Amino acid sequence: MISLSLIGAGRIGRIHAANVAARASSHGDIRLAGIADAIPQAAEELAARVGSKAVGLEEALEGGTSNAVLIASPTDTHAEFIERAANAGKAIMCEKPVDLDAGRIRKVLAAVEAKGVKLLVGFNRRFDPNFASLKARIKTGAVGDVELVTILSRDPAPPPVSYIERSGGLFRDMMVHDLDMARFLMGEDPVEVHAVGSALVDPAIGAAGDVDTAAVLLKTASGRIAQISNSRRATYGYDQRIEVHGSKGMLRAGNVHETTVELANGGGITADPVQNFFLERYEAAYRRELAAFIAVVKGEQATWPNGHDGLKAQILADAATASAKSSQPVKLSWS
Amino acid sequence: MISLSLIGAGRIGRIHAANVAARASSHGDIRLAGIADAIPQAAEELAARVGSKAVGLEEALEGGTSNAVLIASPTDTHAEFIERAANAGKAIMCEKPVDLDAGRIRKVLAAVEAKGVKLLVGFNRRFDPNFASLKARIKTGAVGDVELVTILSRDPAPPPVSYIERSGGLFRDMMVHDLDMARFLMGEDPVEVHAVGSALVDPAIGAAGDVDTAAVLLKTASGRIAQISNSRRATYGYDQRIEVHGSKGMLRAGNVHETTVELANGGGITADPVQNFFLERYEAAYRRELAAFIAVVKGEQATWPNGHDGLKAQILADAATASAKSSQPVKLSWS
Amino acid sequence: MISLSLIGAGRIGRIHAANVAARASSHGDIRLAGIADAIPQAAEELAARVGSKAVGLEEALEGGTSNAVLIASPTDTHAEFIERAANAGKAIMCEKPVDLDAGRIRKVLAAVEAKGVKLLVGFNRRFDPNFASLKARIKTGAVGDVELVTILSRDPAPPPVSYIERSGGLFRDMMVHDLDMARFLMGEDPVEVHAVGSALVDPAIGAAGDVDTAAVLLKTASGRIAQISNSRRATYGYDQRIEVHGSKGMLRAGNVHETTVELANGGGITADPVQNFFLERYEAAYRRELAAFIAVVKGEQATWPNGHDGLKAQILADAATASAKSSQPVKLSWS
Amino acid sequence: MISLSLIGAGRIGRIHAANVAARASSHGDIRLAGIADAIPQAAEELAARVGSKAVGLEEALEGGTSNAVLIASPTDTHAEFIERAANAGKAIMCEKPVDLDAGRIRKVLAAVEAKGVKLLVGFNRRFDPNFASLKARIKTGAVGDVELVTILSRDPAPPPVSYIERSGGLFRDMMVHDLDMARFLMGEDPVEVHAVGSALVDPAIGAAGDVDTAAVLLKTASGRIAQISNSRRATYGYDQRIEVHGSKGMLRAGNVHETTVELANGGGITADPVQNFFLERYEAAYRRELAAFIAVVKGEQATWPNGHDGLKAQILADAATASAKSSQPVKLSWS
Repeated sequence: MISLSLIGAGRIGRIHAANVAARASSHGDIRLAGIADAIPQAAEELAARVGSKAVGLEEALEGGTSNAVLIASPTDTHAEFIERAANAGKAIMCEKPVDLDAGRIRKVLAAVEAKGVKLLVGFNRRFDPNFASLKARIKTGAVGDVELVTILSRDPAPPPVSYIERSGGLFRDMMVHDLDMARFLMGEDPVEVHAVGSALVDPAIGAAGDVDTAAVLLKTASGRIAQISNSRRATYGYDQRIEVHGSKGMLRAGNVHETTVELANGGGITADPVQNFFLERYEAAYRRELAAFIAVVKGEQATWPNGHDGLKAQILADAATASAKSSQPVKLSWS
Repeated sequence: MISLSLIGAGRIGRIHAANVAARASSHGDIRLAGIADAIPQAAEELAARVGSKAVGLEEALEGGTSNAVLIASPTDTHAEFIERAANAGKAIMCEKPVDLDAGRIRKVLAAVEAKGVKLLVGFNRRFDPNFASLKARIKTGAVGDVELVTILSRDPAPPPVSYIERSGGLFRDMMVHDLDMARFLMGEDPVEVHAVGSALVDPAIGAAGDVDTAAVLLKTASGRIAQISNSRRATYGYDQRIEVHGSKGMLRAGNVHETTVELANGGGITADPVQNFFLERYEAAYRRELAAFIAVVKGEQATWPNGHDGLKAQILADAATASAKSSQPVKLSWS
Repeated sequence: MISLSLIGAGRIGRIHAANVAARASSHGDIRLAGIADAIPQAAEELAARVGSKAVGLEEALEGGTSNAVLIASPTDTHAEFIERAANAGKAIMCEKPVDLDAGRIRKVLAAVEAKGVKLLVGFNRRFDPNFASLKARIKTGAVGDVELVTILSRDPAPPPVSYIERSGGLFRDMMVHDLDMARFLMGEDPVEVHAVGSALVDPAIGAAGDVDTAAVLLKTASGRIAQISNSRRATYGYDQRIEVHGSKGMLRAGNVHETTVELANGGGITADPVQNFFLERYEAAYRRELAAFIAVVKGEQATWPNGHDGLKAQILADAATASAKSSQPVKLSWS
Repeated sequence: MISLSLIGAGRIGRIHAANVAARASSHGDIRLAGIADAIPQAAEELAARVGSKAVGLEEALEGGTSNAVLIASPTDTHAEFIERAANAGKAIMCEKPVDLDAGRIRKVLAAVEAKGVKLLVGFNRRFDPNFASLKARIKTGAVGDVELVTILSRDPAPPPVSYIERSGGLFRDMMVHDLDMARFLMGEDPVEVHAVGSALVDPAIGAAGDVDTAAVLLKTASGRIAQISNSRRATYGYDQRIEVHGSKGMLRAGNVHETTVELANGGGITADPVQNFFLERYEAAYRRELAAFIAVVKGEQATWPNGHDGLKAQILADAATASAKSSQPVKLSWS
């Protein structure tokens, strides 16, 4: 039985809390031991809703009532919380990123490894049923050797500039998901990163030193190529697509539309916009991520994606950030 | 607060129980007072899983611990259970059909009306988000006046002949859903029913006096036309589609595929089969049906679809059965 | 070398003339010997354009300059022209229908057979590359035994009532194509015809005694079922679709859109309307029909579709007309 | 009346000859004065087929029987032939590229301008009805300001290495089309070119110093971004797609499938492969290109795409070639 402490009662925390409660009722292999939040009232309200209790941060991270912790607090707390939970010997599931600084991540991973605890990093796209099915088919050899991967990710609308300023920039905040997916889908680490970026959606984003429209080219040592494009705006919904070309064919995963309804008239045949909200789009992914964490804690599967996946994605995001600024490619060696 | 008794701990009962439990946790406006089943152990196991308790049938239907009942027991028990719950003054949600005999349904409805209780009949397709969205757009006038409706419904595989023998036949067991949808989408009752049917999938179904492949033409007094086709077999999944033509255009609702992944190679571009299992395909419909029942009990919306909808669908299914047997159309008057 | 006389320099005649000219230049196995039209100037203009010459009707039908004739004149001239060309020993390609009266068709076929000439009837849908491919795959067993066929055909807009009045009615004028396709795709003749029809598009069509919205159910002796629906209106283009269900799967042929472009914005994702004009939609079909006629004349393939196909489609159209009027099915025996 | 000489009776020459013949018959505004080819028999056979005559190269390029010339001979002859035809005062349509060397193209353009003749360069994609429609909608503002363009082009199979060796490399031989389209769709010239390439399809291509899988990132002065990917292999047909993101939405043009038929069975729902051969895929484009040239010669529209478009595409292809070799971006200034 996993006794889980949840840190963070915000938007993502609430999703995880509901998923843990549903899993408890359907499988009985996990319980929500307590919920901690910097705003105690938020923890209390969420705990009341899902039949748990509010606890202090120390209890959640280091107390004896839980043997696992799910960290869904703000990004700048992740590194410290992981270290504290690791020191307390707890299994850890942490929302991405571990930290915005690769050096800091390395320290965290060292602590995690020193304590021998498990750390699953929440790259939700890996758990999306569509993308997971695509990857599974690559593994079966459906398209032969992977040669070219194209990933597109566009948010419906840009966040406030205040968010942008603390985000680490588009490459670290948003594209880091796609950089992780590129590694995951190619099965090989990129050694060359070319990035370009522009502030086309909102000049205020440019004024804040960031970009809102960007594209990256990655190349691996064996010559595999990945293309990624990102934008902070998509008028037709949250656009999330992947296309993988291999020696034997192509696999692609398309968008999820709001409904299957189409309207035909003189203007043409119109399908619904795609699901607009990431929590709706990745609803199943969050459930499957929790199931994976449970399986990891039970020892049924390897820790995946782990802290090293988090570190590598961060290094790629740093490289893309540098490349876009300098208009020069960044070379990487992973030895 | 609605205190609900659930009758039936089988496949559908378990879906409803899980939905009630989730609704209780997310909205707090309903609780599962007890679960009854002809097999007490089934009720106990389900109750343990969702945090309720097993009760006897009498308690569930007539006892004081609930003010509403959800009937998910075998078809031949529906009429009696509705009457008993009505006599006890409970609000009732009953899986379709009320009964396989229209005369019996009329008696049940009389009892329900005499007692002034609410009876929602579980035509799940009306609550499917795709079909509900299609209907909502008809109401907004997106396609003008409805002229021609085409409904296709194909099961992945035929049920055992033992089931067929007790089912009332394809038109009453399977097409009754589509006949209800045809009324619903045309907004008018058919007055002419032409049906044809064949046993092409399994000769044993023909030997049992039923058909497994069938089509119906409906015409309303104002001249609207509906086409329905059914089959007990679809190799590519559970095929559920609707197309509505009106004076200004066309609306259609397509199938839900297992994933959005497509594979392209020399054989072409292959999308996934469609979701194969009705409980998966109509998962959201069952949740929305429960929400509708709660709103009905709270008095927030009219009882819909109600017992008269159930009766009319049954009359249409009877007419289709007779038409297919006689190769003659059946005329209906609804006054 | 086929020397072909063309009768009719109207819309369809011009298509055929251009196709003959192109075929002459690409294959050199046919020449356009002359063009006749009731309006001599029309014949002259067309002849000048395609490098042929205008001739009189008698020369075209019975003269020595041609050994084949393509009849694209008004429907009420077809029967007489076929007989005259047959008497002159010419191979004949005639636009559908042979005649609107089945008895008259029988006489024509007797004359054709007595003279031993070849008569190909221009059911253009059989030659559409999409529908032909669908049929070819049925023949290879891709879907096993055919069980249910659904054919949808909707014109963009109704013709003038003056046309309707001379057309023989929707079933003979428009649905006759789909009735022919139903026979063709099922590989078996229907023995039971249920039809319903309404005048919903234009009340003047109803006042003229015809319908503009119609549906038919066909059943064969072995139990195969076909559904056909027709309308004289489709706001999104010329809607032409076929779906065939068999024991092993389903084949469908969809519409041809104006372009492959899609626009995505807040309103959804919009594909182009479908090709709006039958001459554009069936452009390739007319070319392939001519190629088939050439192969027939050369003796490379059987005459197909022939006069008996034309007769059977007409008998089915008559049956549908009668069924829709009487609200009774019509039984057919083909012995 | 345009009297056109055609140089080249190969694969592309035959397409143009047939299009000129059809245009002559349908519009009467052009005639094929003569056909020249290095293999006189090829010119004679083609001339016989389309009703023209074989002529010598000098007659075709400089003789008095034509006032326009269409150059469809091997790439390494284009520059000289354009100069000779320009000196003779003829209007010129030339297959891409003008030359593989940008310096040589500049000299040719100087000669063309000195003589004041018109030179249309045959970038066939600009004339594809789908891509042209997409561009037309950009112009109407359907997606607002263009921000990100993604172009994908994959050949069904690699050419022989002997072809590769004379081709100038993938970026000049194949991607030059997409580089032209990127300029065309963004409406702005790129100033930064990042390219990566690999030989993944055929090691012999790599041994010959070329790549068969490549991707390019382009950025314009105003910050617009284009992504292009190319491969010499696509198992599912000739893959040609474009996607354009703007401030108000997205436009995309998809592939053209062999037919509209889909097969559904336990393996899923399979659409046809896409058209496999570039002459079939761009059949309409070649017709529209000829019509554009005729309009240019008549003075009805500006010369488009012209020699400067050809030159700029070549400069971009050179930049991509250099970037892929050096793993460094290439900066361009167009002043």
